[in-house]
Amino acid sequence: MPLANSAFANKPQAQPPVRFCDVVRQAGATDYEALFKASLHRLHEEQRYRVFADIERIAGGYPNAVWHSATGPRNIVLWCSNDYLGMSQNASVVGAMVETAKRMGTGAGGTRNIGGTNHPLVGLEAELADLHDKKAALVFTSGYVSNQTGISTIGKLLPGCLILSDASNHNSMIEGIHQSSCDKQIFRHNDLDHLEQLLGAAGRQRPKLIVFESLYSMDGDIAPIAEICDLAERYGAMTYCDEVHAVGMYGPRGGGISEQLGLSARIDVIEGTLAKAFGCLGGYIAGSAALVDAVRSHAPGFIFTTALPPAVCAAATAAIRHLKTSGRERSRHQNRVARLKWMLDVHGLPQLRNGSHIVPVPVGDAKTCKAVSDYLLNDFGIYIQPINYPTVPRGTERLRITPTPLHTDEHIDQLMAALSSAWRRFEL
Amino acid sequence: MPLANSAFANKPQAQPPVRFCDVVRQAGATDYEALFKASLHRLHEEQRYRVFADIERIAGGYPNAVWHSATGPRNIVLWCSNDYLGMSQNASVVGAMVETAKRMGTGAGGTRNIGGTNHPLVGLEAELADLHDKKAALVFTSGYVSNQTGISTIGKLLPGCLILSDASNHNSMIEGIHQSSCDKQIFRHNDLDHLEQLLGAAGRQRPKLIVFESLYSMDGDIAPIAEICDLAERYGAMTYCDEVHAVGMYGPRGGGISEQLGLSARIDVIEGTLAKAFGCLGGYIAGSAALVDAVRSHAPGFIFTTALPPAVCAAATAAIRHLKTSGRERSRHQNRVARLKWMLDVHGLPQLRNGSHIVPVPVGDAKTCKAVSDYLLNDFGIYIQPINYPTVPRGTERLRITPTPLHTDEHIDQLMAALSSAWRRFEL
Ligand SMILES: Cc1ncc(COP(=O)(O)O)c(C=O)c1O
Ligand SMILES: Cc1ncc(COP(=O)(O)O)c(C=O)c1O
Repeated sequence: MPLANSAFANKPQAQPPVRFCDVVRQAGATDYEALFKASLHRLHEEQRYRVFADIERIAGGYPNAVWHSATGPRNIVLWCSNDYLGMSQNASVVGAMVETAKRMGTGAGGTRNIGGTNHPLVGLEAELADLHDKKAALVFTSGYVSNQTGISTIGKLLPGCLILSDASNHNSMIEGIHQSSCDKQIFRHNDLDHLEQLLGAAGRQRPKLIVFESLYSMDGDIAPIAEICDLAERYGAMTYCDEVHAVGMYGPRGGGISEQLGLSARIDVIEGTLAKAFGCLGGYIAGSAALVDAVRSHAPGFIFTTALPPAVCAAATAAIRHLKTSGRERSRHQNRVARLKWMLDVHGLPQLRNGSHIVPVPVGDAKTCKAVSDYLLNDFGIYIQPINYPTVPRGTERLRITPTPLHTDEHIDQLMAALSSAWRRFEL
Repeated sequence: MPLANSAFANKPQAQPPVRFCDVVRQAGATDYEALFKASLHRLHEEQRYRVFADIERIAGGYPNAVWHSATGPRNIVLWCSNDYLGMSQNASVVGAMVETAKRMGTGAGGTRNIGGTNHPLVGLEAELADLHDKKAALVFTSGYVSNQTGISTIGKLLPGCLILSDASNHNSMIEGIHQSSCDKQIFRHNDLDHLEQLLGAAGRQRPKLIVFESLYSMDGDIAPIAEICDLAERYGAMTYCDEVHAVGMYGPRGGGISEQLGLSARIDVIEGTLAKAFGCLGGYIAGSAALVDAVRSHAPGFIFTTALPPAVCAAATAAIRHLKTSGRERSRHQNRVARLKWMLDVHGLPQLRNGSHIVPVPVGDAKTCKAVSDYLLNDFGIYIQPINYPTVPRGTERLRITPTPLHTDEHIDQLMAALSSAWRRFEL
């Protein structure tokens, strides 16, 4: 194997403070290397430079994994994965990937139009339409791409459209809105009064698209979906709901918060991912036949890219089918979440309260957050990434803990001991 | 399985002509369903509505496949896949996917930062850096995403940057330029004089990024890379070269046209895909350590999305390694291409001449192009998608034939018979 990628070396070196404007002045605006270096130095200065841990998961052993540290491999426990239900190691899911790779090969071989529409992908789209009780569904390379090209295409297809976007929306939705070139207005997070005000000001005749998430992944709070639908109907707006952190985990068949609350039919577009609770890769939208066909026919990020491999599609289909009928993973998941939240209280550790499976433990400062995370990993073999700006606002830095059905009581006890020790050590 | 996705039914129905403005007037600007339907009717009217063929590839049998037609499954021969070398069915590539899926599961479980940096992905990036003789490489979900978020991030990191873009650049590059919010100027396709004129006008001090492809996939023509690098050096510009349709296929180790011509070191960013000659899924950039680290640290389409599954990374790594040492696929590929081009001449069939492996056969009209494609599929079991607007300019509609090392002389003879028959039937 060639030399390791030096940009990702495990130990960031101390960097002398460098000011961007100084670099530009001293080196000239076309000393590109100096400019890229300066942008990195700035991240180091702000304690925002990220180092990725190189992790090797073990099918059958989840949440246990191997961390390839600078000093060699070490056994660790994952506490921050978005493989929320452990489906990426479910036997039927792995089996579907293996069987399909052997039978059809590793790749799709083309865009959807140029030979890439593979049989498992057609089946997956039918499965997803059924999951959300919609007429049609369309699969993209990722949840990110489904939002970016989905929202921008829908916006462009509606002449003069105004997009109303929740202030806490994910970056993929923000980029999709930007790419649509539509006018946009941002309503305060989950603030129905503000949304209504903006809808009213826009007027009945103007096309309006309300873009929001069902479950916000960093705070774990849930949107007032029914009330947003009420407003949409009253003011003649379309609704686009990102269920990325809910599909598979909520609702009798894993159709998300919208299914749980019986609201699917009132949401025009449900967007989701195949990469979190479904344990694979890919994203999708589900909606009316005409809407989905229009996006299929116009979205550049769908048209001009290679289709998902058949083996990935087959694995995702197996995961969705499993979770449509099995409630075991969901109930065990909620049980683990409840226990973890309770134990945090018992140990006097802080948490942001919410009604979901995400357990944010506030730290409040980028440097400390990183230090706590390093301490947990190095001293306890517990892996919880620090969540810093720009993923969350400055001052709200946190550990974001995601229990899975596979975390045992012992795992939770070990986590409590480690966190308590960290809280003492860093005087939190 | 639930009911088939009705948007993708195999037979598009005849649609009455509908004018968009009439729909808006009659239905009101907020009759969203009517608007989406109108956008589809417009495509039907313009003969641009696309129907995807549902194809089931057979590992070991490529280029043979099964077409799931409206009347049942049929055996066909693929002649338009971008699995250019058939690597998606290579035993070591399939084996790597299968072994890794069994060992590590089906998904990465998180973004790169949140537990998604898996061991095979780290190895893949090292392999890619080595392939292009660069200090570092960074993997994205697709080639599309690598261009869109890569170009936009590089542009944003260079204050006041002007992007100079070849007129024939792929949609993913155009969207990346748009997303960067940089000023841009488009130079006529492969026109060095025009490029020089624009570089000169921009001035020495302004950051400038030249964005181009090494091999343009619809015409199969090759860029004057050395001369573009000369100009970049003379005027102090950065170069960004998309090698999506060349990696794996050109150069002694499959490093693309830049490797073949010994120019890798003069190109600042080489971008490629894992989904075509490497037979998997994913995209990447390779460049200096600082550049790659800066993109890693700032690119939203990289930061906020789930990492590629370990099994996909392992399969891609196996394909790259295989093609680094084996020249067999490349030489057989070129042999097949030469034979096909020669046979087209022998049969008096037209082709756009070029120096690459892509064989465009001009038809020149969307409706005829689709009709010829349907005829080949229905009457001869030969699958070549029609390439119509917006993929190529109107009036240049074509069949785009991509021979692989696995197409035999008999396959070529059958293709000639079918094309000759089509050319007679449609009086071309
Ligand atoms: C709310 C939200 N939407 C979309 C995405 C993107 O999904 P994917 O990882 O499938 O690209 C994410 C995170 O990754 C997310 O948190
Ligand atoms: C020139 C060019 N760049 C990038 C892409 C996108 O690559 P991917 O299919 O990996 O998204 C394509 C086609 O798919 C292409 O033709």
